[in-house]
Amino acid sequence: MVHPLPLMRNLFPAILLMLSATFAAAQSPPSIRVVPMPASVELGSGRLPIDRSFSVSVTGYHDVSLDRGIQRFLSQLSRQTAIPFWTKTGSAKATLVIHTARGRERVQKLGEDESYTLLITSARAELDAPTPLGTLHGLETFLQLVEPSADGFTVPVVTIHDQPRFPWRGLLIDVSRHFMPLDALRRNLDAMAAVKMNVLHWHLSDDQGFRVESRRFPRLHGMGSEGQFYTQAEIREFIAYARDRGIRVVPEFDVPGHSRSWFLGYPELASGPGPYALDGNASPAMDPTRESTYRFLDKFVGEMSGLFPDAYFHIGGDEVDGKQWDANPKIQKFMRAHRMERNQDLQAGFNRRLQKILSKHHKQMIGWDEILHPDLLKTIVVQSWRGQQSLASAAKQGYPGLLSHGYYLDLMWPAARHYAVDPMSDAAADLTPEQKSHILGGESCMWVEWVSPENIDNRIWPRNAAVAERLWSPQSVTDPDSLYARLDALTLRLEFSGLTLRSSRTLMLRRMAGAEDVAALAALADVLEPVKGYARSKGLAQWDFHAPLNRMVDAVYPESDAARRFTAIVQAWLAGGHTDSAAEAQIRAQLTAWRDLDAKLHPLLADRALLQELAPISSNLSALSAAGLQALDHLDHAQPSPDDWRAQQLALATQAQQPSANLLLMVAAPIQQLLDATAH
Amino acid sequence: MVHPLPLMRNLFPAILLMLSATFAAAQSPPSIRVVPMPASVELGSGRLPIDRSFSVSVTGYHDVSLDRGIQRFLSQLSRQTAIPFWTKTGSAKATLVIHTARGRERVQKLGEDESYTLLITSARAELDAPTPLGTLHGLETFLQLVEPSADGFTVPVVTIHDQPRFPWRGLLIDVSRHFMPLDALRRNLDAMAAVKMNVLHWHLSDDQGFRVESRRFPRLHGMGSEGQFYTQAEIREFIAYARDRGIRVVPEFDVPGHSRSWFLGYPELASGPGPYALDGNASPAMDPTRESTYRFLDKFVGEMSGLFPDAYFHIGGDEVDGKQWDANPKIQKFMRAHRMERNQDLQAGFNRRLQKILSKHHKQMIGWDEILHPDLLKTIVVQSWRGQQSLASAAKQGYPGLLSHGYYLDLMWPAARHYAVDPMSDAAADLTPEQKSHILGGESCMWVEWVSPENIDNRIWPRNAAVAERLWSPQSVTDPDSLYARLDALTLRLEFSGLTLRSSRTLMLRRMAGAEDVAALAALADVLEPVKGYARSKGLAQWDFHAPLNRMVDAVYPESDAARRFTAIVQAWLAGGHTDSAAEAQIRAQLTAWRDLDAKLHPLLADRALLQELAPISSNLSALSAAGLQALDHLDHAQPSPDDWRAQQLALATQAQQPSANLLLMVAAPIQQLLDATAH
Repeated sequence: MVHPLPLMRNLFPAILLMLSATFAAAQSPPSIRVVPMPASVELGSGRLPIDRSFSVSVTGYHDVSLDRGIQRFLSQLSRQTAIPFWTKTGSAKATLVIHTARGRERVQKLGEDESYTLLITSARAELDAPTPLGTLHGLETFLQLVEPSADGFTVPVVTIHDQPRFPWRGLLIDVSRHFMPLDALRRNLDAMAAVKMNVLHWHLSDDQGFRVESRRFPRLHGMGSEGQFYTQAEIREFIAYARDRGIRVVPEFDVPGHSRSWFLGYPELASGPGPYALDGNASPAMDPTRESTYRFLDKFVGEMSGLFPDAYFHIGGDEVDGKQWDANPKIQKFMRAHRMERNQDLQAGFNRRLQKILSKHHKQMIGWDEILHPDLLKTIVVQSWRGQQSLASAAKQGYPGLLSHGYYLDLMWPAARHYAVDPMSDAAADLTPEQKSHILGGESCMWVEWVSPENIDNRIWPRNAAVAERLWSPQSVTDPDSLYARLDALTLRLEFSGLTLRSSRTLMLRRMAGAEDVAALAALADVLEPVKGYARSKGLAQWDFHAPLNRMVDAVYPESDAARRFTAIVQAWLAGGHTDSAAEAQIRAQLTAWRDLDAKLHPLLADRALLQELAPISSNLSALSAAGLQALDHLDHAQPSPDDWRAQQLALATQAQQPSANLLLMVAAPIQQLLDATAH
Repeated sequence: MVHPLPLMRNLFPAILLMLSATFAAAQSPPSIRVVPMPASVELGSGRLPIDRSFSVSVTGYHDVSLDRGIQRFLSQLSRQTAIPFWTKTGSAKATLVIHTARGRERVQKLGEDESYTLLITSARAELDAPTPLGTLHGLETFLQLVEPSADGFTVPVVTIHDQPRFPWRGLLIDVSRHFMPLDALRRNLDAMAAVKMNVLHWHLSDDQGFRVESRRFPRLHGMGSEGQFYTQAEIREFIAYARDRGIRVVPEFDVPGHSRSWFLGYPELASGPGPYALDGNASPAMDPTRESTYRFLDKFVGEMSGLFPDAYFHIGGDEVDGKQWDANPKIQKFMRAHRMERNQDLQAGFNRRLQKILSKHHKQMIGWDEILHPDLLKTIVVQSWRGQQSLASAAKQGYPGLLSHGYYLDLMWPAARHYAVDPMSDAAADLTPEQKSHILGGESCMWVEWVSPENIDNRIWPRNAAVAERLWSPQSVTDPDSLYARLDALTLRLEFSGLTLRSSRTLMLRRMAGAEDVAALAALADVLEPVKGYARSKGLAQWDFHAPLNRMVDAVYPESDAARRFTAIVQAWLAGGHTDSAAEAQIRAQLTAWRDLDAKLHPLLADRALLQELAPISSNLSALSAAGLQALDHLDHAQPSPDDWRAQQLALATQAQQPSANLLLMVAAPIQQLLDATAH
């Protein structure tokens, strides 16, 4: 599930293809700027003003949790408009009347009714939902509808009937490789609620850190976390915070591999002699042949089952490195005695024992693809990270499944690429309806090898909203242009809810520059993206999770909006036979600005250790932009460019598309297209 | 203390004068970029690197509070560099060795030793201080010394001996007119600690809100706060937070005037019949003739004395509106019976009674100028808001005093203007050394009639640092150019400590525009300032503290750096006989950008209710900039401009300097100077 280096080798050309395909055709703007797009939207005419007279009344069922949700709604509406609403609840003739039919399950359950209906006229609004989950979703939709206009803040007249396509819409956050403080997680829960995601998959332990206080086994967090863990009180409060937002928290404790951090305090669990450290590349595994291992896990699962109320318990189970098993004579003897030929059989045996332990503690097992084995009960949920094929194959065998392959946010793909991955497409397209019913949804994954609390927000958002929409909206909602237009609005909205998905880059640029005015540096950052897939890890001799994440690659957004827009304009202009002079003027102005940027940046880049690696990129951008401007001149005069000049510039364009400082210059490709066009 | 409308009528010309004087002469850059400038700085050569090997050791005295301070130092150093330092304390051969001689007073006392010595060589650093207060200050100095360079993060080789000039260096924050949540106050405490301020004067009650939970008199907060108050538990935690940062918390409960919020729950305290509401302009006052008033205050002060440990208790005492007293026959009869001729005598009697109550509860009284009366004991502290004259006069009579006149941050003065106000200058300059010794220091004041939690940070910072330096650094430190250069560095540093003094404007612009890219709008905001003094309140028929603070006047910074810099360049260029061609190119580029801004902004301004009022300002900026460019042409050719053209442009410049939408276009004046220069 992490760093399968070969997998993504050919990612880069794929992205370019994707961008080209996506932006070839301009499409009509979306009817409403809401993510995920509701199941049914009927747009009327007119708008309902959101001004100081706005008020809310609550009818039908309510409880303290829902009351808090409505209070949050008002606070958020205040943040978006700066109109103070705190005294405005409870009025009889309210602008927004909320009606909830009944309460929720004590512990949020997979498949609880999340539907709602939102009716907005030019005079008032009504939100109806069977349960508070639907009410919360409807309020989020309402907030996204609020926009400033010439007449002040308004929402459109609209009728929305909405419910999710899949019941399991999750986000995995790894907190082992880099610890994420609770405030970072809480603001991401807020953002998940904004896009109606309902599961936080909390990857709490891995080789590099064990992040939960265990009172039964205090050396787990005591020796396995460098002091960076969550107390049980914090976890209880955090789960309550998530529940208030309609989000289940599913804990993952990855076993029997990915478990080095356990062994610092409890080396007797391991299959090899140790000693163990949090640093390093070794991938030891638990010893599945000793009864003491299961006694430990029984007590451990018992303690954690009391802490995490969700019905599901994720046991990881991925990427078990067999080296320790192969090297341990006792384990080899055990395997021979039990006629186990492969390590997979040993792991299956381990999982069977673990499943019994989970059942005893009233938990349903969930794990990664590798746990799939005919011996396991059909109630286990298989989370597919290796491909859509394994999800389909699990469904065929009757196992409930979740798709994560295609939803790895750490691979730095563009939103449109995640958006194009559907749990029911590809191998799953051929399943029978009964088999399809086993597919519960999916989860995006935020692995944090290269992520800090400072940049996690922009690593997850807004791209994660593409996955959220894929899992909520009807399968037919697929237009990436519409998605991107709505992501722009969402980004704005999320920053108001406290996410730092835009502001943190500014701060990081200021740190590198040591100056407040970073406009020029930001202009460079705007056209850069981090390298894709696992390219950044590829050259590493050894992981170092204490290394500062303070370089440009850590600051730039995973997807460059500026490059996406520039590419679209260039391609449309070329496709139109270079006749659109307004578009050409735009291209020319942009290329001029990029050409002149290096002169502004050069002294700064030379004078800052953290920026020196950007000098060649900035210089490439300048040279390529100059070439692009010359290409425009050739195209204007309908004269082919000289072959040797073109060859030289194309060589530069090719070179500029190579990763440098773990960065990609995303406008090199569209400039290359301009150069190509001057050939005849 | 609030809205003396006539006082500031002539502020605007004064600012221009100040700017001219300040930037006429270019001065050498400061030796180190620290605010406040330490008492003694010896800069060496070389730098100490701050890299992953950096560590801290703690010797001598320490306690949990100091340990937390050192942990905060490491966290902040991590935020500034993104290098993780959390595991690095306690090493034997540390980079920074901290030695503290002894502990602090249980309750922080006025005049405790705050000195420290910081020695930095190219190999290591030592911080020595008699008490943890000095240690904390030294750590803040260290953090401000960290800067990025071509060799990574470093601090300069330097020897610093430092101690404060005044023992009372405060910031008043009003939380009555607009409630300020604790997180906003906490981040401001962090910022105060960064500039070594040591008193938060917490203005907790006023006509518009009573913000403290009272268990004795629960209708005070229950009916006087609209639910926006601090619980006693929150206050205790907040005071501990301040103490950890070397900051005393002095509460103010303003009596007998400014007390309308008390009367909603306890109308029997008032001098008139009521009824009372939080809204409105009425200024009722407590009835000083009834014994029940003093019984109430005795119990109230008793309760609050248990909550606020500081030795001082601020009773306000300013601006008592005599109308209710004049209109109440019983009060008039009382005055006649006691041979009181003026309302001031009545208030003095009230204050004598109050002083006895405070003494009973072991508190020293502090109040505004108006409490000064020969009958009061010489231990009361007089805080001067009306002028330096009243501070000097108090000192002459032997009263300890604090200066706040000249330090009102809500007047939107430039930092240099606050900086030029010295507690020992003006009327105080002629005092004897003994009389001078009564002047304890001063306090800047953040009255929040027009301030929200969203913009409070940029209303206070960085300008408040000018006052902090005035009160800490030697009287001889007065160079505003050096101040501004160091404020730039401080602004950057404060944003890393969690203050939103820059990021909140971006968010506010995005709200108004409904778009993420607000570069053009920010370029306009950059040259605007809010109107000065009390101009914004002047036209109001009635206060409305529920009005949204979401307009451009709420978003722009109190002081425009762009205008200050442009003014300085223009003046230097004109003074140099227009010979500096690089400067002229800069002026030309800037004017061109401003001229072209309106075309970019116009469609947006027309389409947003909150922005429409900016259209004339944007159009003035464009027209004036065009005129400025023409003026440059005339100057280039050494030809006077045509008189009628110049008259027309100067009329425009004059008009553009008038407030519009409560905003001032700060570059109109320097452009006018360019136009003026074309006369001959």
